[in-house]
Amino acid sequence: MTDLTDLSMREAGILLLRREASACDLLEATLAQLEESEPSVHAYATVTEDVARAAARAAQKELDRGRWRGPMHGIPVGVKDLFYTKDAPTEAGSKVLAGFVPDDDADAVRRLRTAGAVMVGKTVTHEFAYGQNVPPTRNALDNSCYPGGSSAGSAVAVAARSAYGALGTDSGGSVRVPASLNGVVGIKPTFGRISRRGVVAMSPSLDHVGPIARTVEDCALMLGELAGFDPLDSSSLDTPVDDYTRDIGAGIAGMRIGVEREFYFGDHVVPEVRDALVSAMSVLQDLGATIVEVSIPRLGLMPTVGLITLLADTSDYHRALLRDRAAAYEPKTRVMLEVGSLVFARSYLAAQRARTVLRHAMKDAFLSDRLDAMVAPTQPVMTKPVEQLPVDLVDASSEIGLPDFVRHTWPANLTGQPALTLPCGLAPSGLPVGMELLGRPLDEATLFRIGHAYEQETES
Amino acid sequence: MTDLTDLSMREAGILLLRREASACDLLEATLAQLEESEPSVHAYATVTEDVARAAARAAQKELDRGRWRGPMHGIPVGVKDLFYTKDAPTEAGSKVLAGFVPDDDADAVRRLRTAGAVMVGKTVTHEFAYGQNVPPTRNALDNSCYPGGSSAGSAVAVAARSAYGALGTDSGGSVRVPASLNGVVGIKPTFGRISRRGVVAMSPSLDHVGPIARTVEDCALMLGELAGFDPLDSSSLDTPVDDYTRDIGAGIAGMRIGVEREFYFGDHVVPEVRDALVSAMSVLQDLGATIVEVSIPRLGLMPTVGLITLLADTSDYHRALLRDRAAAYEPKTRVMLEVGSLVFARSYLAAQRARTVLRHAMKDAFLSDRLDAMVAPTQPVMTKPVEQLPVDLVDASSEIGLPDFVRHTWPANLTGQPALTLPCGLAPSGLPVGMELLGRPLDEATLFRIGHAYEQETES
Repeated sequence: MTDLTDLSMREAGILLLRREASACDLLEATLAQLEESEPSVHAYATVTEDVARAAARAAQKELDRGRWRGPMHGIPVGVKDLFYTKDAPTEAGSKVLAGFVPDDDADAVRRLRTAGAVMVGKTVTHEFAYGQNVPPTRNALDNSCYPGGSSAGSAVAVAARSAYGALGTDSGGSVRVPASLNGVVGIKPTFGRISRRGVVAMSPSLDHVGPIARTVEDCALMLGELAGFDPLDSSSLDTPVDDYTRDIGAGIAGMRIGVEREFYFGDHVVPEVRDALVSAMSVLQDLGATIVEVSIPRLGLMPTVGLITLLADTSDYHRALLRDRAAAYEPKTRVMLEVGSLVFARSYLAAQRARTVLRHAMKDAFLSDRLDAMVAPTQPVMTKPVEQLPVDLVDASSEIGLPDFVRHTWPANLTGQPALTLPCGLAPSGLPVGMELLGRPLDEATLFRIGHAYEQETES
Repeated sequence: MTDLTDLSMREAGILLLRREASACDLLEATLAQLEESEPSVHAYATVTEDVARAAARAAQKELDRGRWRGPMHGIPVGVKDLFYTKDAPTEAGSKVLAGFVPDDDADAVRRLRTAGAVMVGKTVTHEFAYGQNVPPTRNALDNSCYPGGSSAGSAVAVAARSAYGALGTDSGGSVRVPASLNGVVGIKPTFGRISRRGVVAMSPSLDHVGPIARTVEDCALMLGELAGFDPLDSSSLDTPVDDYTRDIGAGIAGMRIGVEREFYFGDHVVPEVRDALVSAMSVLQDLGATIVEVSIPRLGLMPTVGLITLLADTSDYHRALLRDRAAAYEPKTRVMLEVGSLVFARSYLAAQRARTVLRHAMKDAFLSDRLDAMVAPTQPVMTKPVEQLPVDLVDASSEIGLPDFVRHTWPANLTGQPALTLPCGLAPSGLPVGMELLGRPLDEATLFRIGHAYEQETES
């Protein structure tokens, strides 16, 4: 028999519907896999076995009675430790919140539970999704390598088969970067598409919630359960949610996919990444899409614009905690927060102006070139062994650092448009390369359709 | 015969319709009055006699042919020198813009002209509506006294009868303060109600355009011509414009008018102002309104919140001009701009947070106390002879300064709700006191109705 943990969420769900496996079987297989992989990957901050077993039994009871809640019913998932959970500590990777158990679930967690998903535990995050420390988490494909961040544990758990899917957050790339570096799929949906209520915040204008999964279709299924209006989140969109899988198999013949070369394909892109993307684009063309050269001014400013915004916003958010519990922060996180408190309003306002210009330029490019999406490398660089990486925004002594990992992911946080990452092959070193697809606001369905077509075509 | 300049806009308009006077008569009477009053009040920066005479002739020609554009057709008005005008210099009271003539009119000016109004000239403003220098303009009621600002010339021209109405701008009180100190009527309408296109800016979130007139009804007539959607101003509201005069005479019986005592009626309110407001509120009660005590937390923070926002925003707006033409600014304006460049983002973000709290608190007070409006003194202090006033935000050596004048006007800029000022009598010194009415967003009509009822009742 196939190991149950090798299945996608959709495949596992079909087994449940056919009574060929139970929710308890899926959970036990996941927990066994977790026990085996955790010592080398450290994806989980907390494993809530008892809660998970009770949830799996409850799910199976409903399934036995013929009540099916949807494609996540009975599916084991991980939740980034930035989301409030009423039955597990929520520490955001920080001693500052040690032992904190919120009164209620984050809205996204509540939605997963309503969908019948079984939470296995809380996954590791960089401190407050912000810290510069490297957590114990290691890359699922090569345990010597950096897993990316800040939703490191969520991506690693999905890649290591200790969850079928996981919740992450993305303020500058924190869903897409680790998903890409671990060879899985992740989406940062349109700003406001998933509620942020009950998520430890960084920046009101940059924070997004997003799912991580093994296949594009699983990612689409998860978004379908997570998306929706939350009247208690002032940034939540009161717009109907698409059926993200209805047309996912309809192909991409005739689609126009933009490529911008100055920002996304400059000399900073390492050859392995460039080669993988060139191949991926020719696959997209073989599938009937047209690759369109586009120009988007000011993209080069965006990593700075994003960083200024995040530094100031996060520092503002932490002001009270930093005053009361400064010593409990990791030293490098404190440095970032202190730096953020020194940002001038004129820099912040200039950043917001640049952002408005980018939003218009992006809209213009999509309109005037009639684009369905844009394609880019998720990162310009490959992951590296952890000891070679300070992965630090302030230490400039290394050849490669955090700015390199997030350079390509910033723009979609600044514009609010959706961005999907999916694997586009392995480099000769055996490490994965990610392809990023950027879309029109609220048009996640097209991104899934392109990603799914690519994935089907290249599946081994 | 009555002097034509003693009439209200509405009365003058009736004369025109009855052919008892011509637009040219109104203009000539206005210009004669201007010639007499200008040496003592200095309300105008530029008088465009030739343009005005041509406009008056054109208006009269249309009236002769039976084409009536509305209540401002043929009415002489002043325009603050912050508005772009294609046929008159637009210098914003600054040597920085000396000789600048824009290619096109501001949208508000265009609307006035479309309504048939006759622009007499550009009225004096503090430098960029921001300078701390006292302009040559003097109070129309006592030429030794401070006229208020920054729409000083607009309010003084209306009070001195050298315009029937005038355009002002209000970012912290710049329409209401001079209107009140000169004993005339002015409104800062709801944020986004009048287009700001073609107005020299200070702050994207605080700037408003507003009319100044001699009576509440005239102010309502002007707003009716000025309000409306402008697709080229991103903050413009695409909401139908009320008929502000239809129910203006319907009385206020049964209305609930809130009064907040901690912020608006503290010890900082001088006795003359307090006495005038107490009388005014009893008039409102005699007219059938109920005065309701309300509590609005955090109001006391608002002058600081407003100042931080304005300092940073204005400094950001002027960054290029300040770099290129620093020497052309008044020294005190430069100091303000330099101070603004030192505001930290954390202060700015804290100010925006406080503002959100105020907006909700204000909404809650209106909803839970079922208020139609709130009443307050427009200023807590009386105007003073100019030589007693540094009128300076930085010099703390004087007993009274700019912060005292704008203390009560800040909140409506920060919430975006409408605020009307109208005279509520003269103090024993002969100087005027203003009553401020704050309303629900887009409910200017109710403010006009209350103001008109009060005005009718107290008219001598």
